[in-house]
Amino acid sequence: MTKQILLALGATTILATSAFAAPPAGTDPAMWALDHDPVAWEITEGLTTEVGARQGGTEAEARGRAWALGYLRKAGFANVREEAFDMPTWVRGEERASVVSPFPQKFAITALGNSGSTGDAGLEAEVAYFPTIDALRAAPDGSLTGKIAFVGHAMKPAQDGSSYGAFGQARFVGPNIAAKKGAAAIVIRSVGTDHNHRNPHTGNTNFEAGVTPIPAGALSIPDADNLVRMVERGKPVKLRLLLTPKNLGTQKSGNVVAELPGSNAALPPIVIACHLDSWDLGTGAIDDAAGCGIITAAASAIKGMKRQRTIRLLWAGAEEVGIWGGKAYAETNKTVPHALAMESDFGADRVWRVDFKLPDSAKPLADRIAAKLAPLGIARGKDPASGGADVGAIIAAQNLGIIDLQQDGSRYFDLHHTPDDTLSMIDKAQLRQNVAAWTAVLSELANYEGDLTVAPKP
Amino acid sequence: MTKQILLALGATTILATSAFAAPPAGTDPAMWALDHDPVAWEITEGLTTEVGARQGGTEAEARGRAWALGYLRKAGFANVREEAFDMPTWVRGEERASVVSPFPQKFAITALGNSGSTGDAGLEAEVAYFPTIDALRAAPDGSLTGKIAFVGHAMKPAQDGSSYGAFGQARFVGPNIAAKKGAAAIVIRSVGTDHNHRNPHTGNTNFEAGVTPIPAGALSIPDADNLVRMVERGKPVKLRLLLTPKNLGTQKSGNVVAELPGSNAALPPIVIACHLDSWDLGTGAIDDAAGCGIITAAASAIKGMKRQRTIRLLWAGAEEVGIWGGKAYAETNKTVPHALAMESDFGADRVWRVDFKLPDSAKPLADRIAAKLAPLGIARGKDPASGGADVGAIIAAQNLGIIDLQQDGSRYFDLHHTPDDTLSMIDKAQLRQNVAAWTAVLSELANYEGDLTVAPKP
Repeated sequence: MTKQILLALGATTILATSAFAAPPAGTDPAMWALDHDPVAWEITEGLTTEVGARQGGTEAEARGRAWALGYLRKAGFANVREEAFDMPTWVRGEERASVVSPFPQKFAITALGNSGSTGDAGLEAEVAYFPTIDALRAAPDGSLTGKIAFVGHAMKPAQDGSSYGAFGQARFVGPNIAAKKGAAAIVIRSVGTDHNHRNPHTGNTNFEAGVTPIPAGALSIPDADNLVRMVERGKPVKLRLLLTPKNLGTQKSGNVVAELPGSNAALPPIVIACHLDSWDLGTGAIDDAAGCGIITAAASAIKGMKRQRTIRLLWAGAEEVGIWGGKAYAETNKTVPHALAMESDFGADRVWRVDFKLPDSAKPLADRIAAKLAPLGIARGKDPASGGADVGAIIAAQNLGIIDLQQDGSRYFDLHHTPDDTLSMIDKAQLRQNVAAWTAVLSELANYEGDLTVAPKP
Repeated sequence: MTKQILLALGATTILATSAFAAPPAGTDPAMWALDHDPVAWEITEGLTTEVGARQGGTEAEARGRAWALGYLRKAGFANVREEAFDMPTWVRGEERASVVSPFPQKFAITALGNSGSTGDAGLEAEVAYFPTIDALRAAPDGSLTGKIAFVGHAMKPAQDGSSYGAFGQARFVGPNIAAKKGAAAIVIRSVGTDHNHRNPHTGNTNFEAGVTPIPAGALSIPDADNLVRMVERGKPVKLRLLLTPKNLGTQKSGNVVAELPGSNAALPPIVIACHLDSWDLGTGAIDDAAGCGIITAAASAIKGMKRQRTIRLLWAGAEEVGIWGGKAYAETNKTVPHALAMESDFGADRVWRVDFKLPDSAKPLADRIAAKLAPLGIARGKDPASGGADVGAIIAAQNLGIIDLQQDGSRYFDLHHTPDDTLSMIDKAQLRQNVAAWTAVLSELANYEGDLTVAPKP
């Protein structure tokens, strides 16, 4: 399948890559990228226009891989390859929600990944409202039988994205809790920070082994607000849901890997990652075509530099639906020693902070990097870097050093996992600031000869 | 139907109206309203929560009328009544769009009012792209046979909303032009000013007598941008459309009329209007529950004042789908002399300008009104007032004076006719500024004894 698509792509599509555009000799590649980088936009525009949505495990993701392989080869990277893997695949069906009584009207809803199905006949039931996830946790077992649980927990924005972990619980574990308490279905206020746009936020949820998945949907935030107002009027509220997702069983996915070779084969590579797949509702611009654009642009910008260390690019597959690509990468590459990992997967807005997790011996390196980033408005953080989803497994397996270029997440969760995640949301100037920051970091790492791994604390 | 709904509403809904809340004796009602008015929000919240979308000619609009009659009676207005009328009714069906080739992906689309149907089988055809409506006009007759015309004309915001008339042509007349030139269907870039949200803008279009309606849809603006990028890559772009709206024939609608009586029956009434119906995609908050809230709140705020002149409230039916309510009002009330008309139908953002169309004899009145509005940040315009859609017919029939309280339309067309038109978009402080401005104007008009009609120029 992939091969055929690739051949078709070669025949019909002109990849007008600008990845050979490079800083003139003598210029600082980071400062050049800040004003001139064409690559990050080209990749973000290309993936969103020529591929669009590309959910992990689907034919659309396979077209995305073909696009990526074509682009990276044309751009002159080495060892460009696909590393295939298998994964279970869930896909969306019809999705509708409406109030049956007392105030009939339609709501905007989307199924959460791994949601059960209502069947084609749909499901009607009374709402049991829980203002917080803790209120749902406190509901007696069996008290939800035959009801639709509604968790109204609202998320607020945070520049560092930290509110996601806390408020995301409604999505991450709410459906499993509701299922165990006997609920017929669950709807949640979308885990998002836009308060007034009518687009629900999807994202994966998980049911424990032995728990039968129930239909689980996210309402748009204005619809969740409306449902709260209805509940507060005191009469029982009955909803009608139609959610017909299905499991396709095991499907093919794959990672795309490419290299910018270094001259010293004794130095383990730096792995820089993004994810190629997206949710199906938008076109995956901020999540995460831009990330692939940023890391690839930065690698392109240092092509003309002398480099000792190899930079390995990982465009991971199937991140959204279970980080399958990251796990597969660690397994496939377990015999290849790595040095350090970085990932760009938090949109396209500016980098505002840099965090490190490096051995003590690398303190001078961190100081040099921080000094190079300061002119870009990037402060040095105090917390240790933690890496991104797709490099989590390889970091854990090999105790890799980590550098996090933290992006401004103030508006990220306005768009995250919604139809609104399109190219129209990308700010070109901020996108280039990302490339400049990554270029500055890679240009230091490429010639650093010391050990970058961090032994775990005993 | 309406009577049954009304009885049901009476039985099940508590209308906790605050419309008796009134300025304390001795206070300026406009300044009181600026800080304290509860009515405009209560109506906007109530209609959007308890009724939701209420398209003209549908059962949902009938529920809206029942809600309005109940509210206005409870609030103590006089002569609260429904004035029924018949109208032709078009309703939306399924709506989907996708690119078949060369870059398969889904687009967000909505049918324009009066669109033809693709039939359940849908329609596949190649796109013929026209960057402007004039380019479509210039296409040779027959050149569009078997094609889907795509008009990409982009609208920009204007505080006074003036860009709508110009850029709205793609919707108003584009489908008719394309149909006459033989197109199989037409898609337009949504007539809207949001550049990055994925919600298409609906709205009516019209086909000339003898022209068979073709399927006509609006793409969301990011999708229109994406389609332009695809077209510009130079390969033919084939779209698949599924639009299955239908005509229901003649259906019932109605206006809701209420009065705040004046003491001098010899003085003709002032009519103040809004429209009760909305498009079906949102909940009709800015368009136009807020307008009904504003005019009713202002009439409520002057209840405690001595008033000579009757203020008549018109919550018009079926504005969006052809201004049927406004026409019916003028016909039903043609033997009742009126004095002056005003309408609130441009959202809920602040009033920034006041325009007048009054006889020369009323110049001192206009001066007093302008002076009262200035502290609210409202400037006096130089253009003559033109009134709103629902009062257009009665103005024309009786040469009425007009006062326009112009609302700030800078973001109105971001939301206009989209699912995003919900209560979550309403700014309470700006909503109250509207009420204050209307209260100031009505408090002057209620005791003005001179003629307010304007004889047409010979």
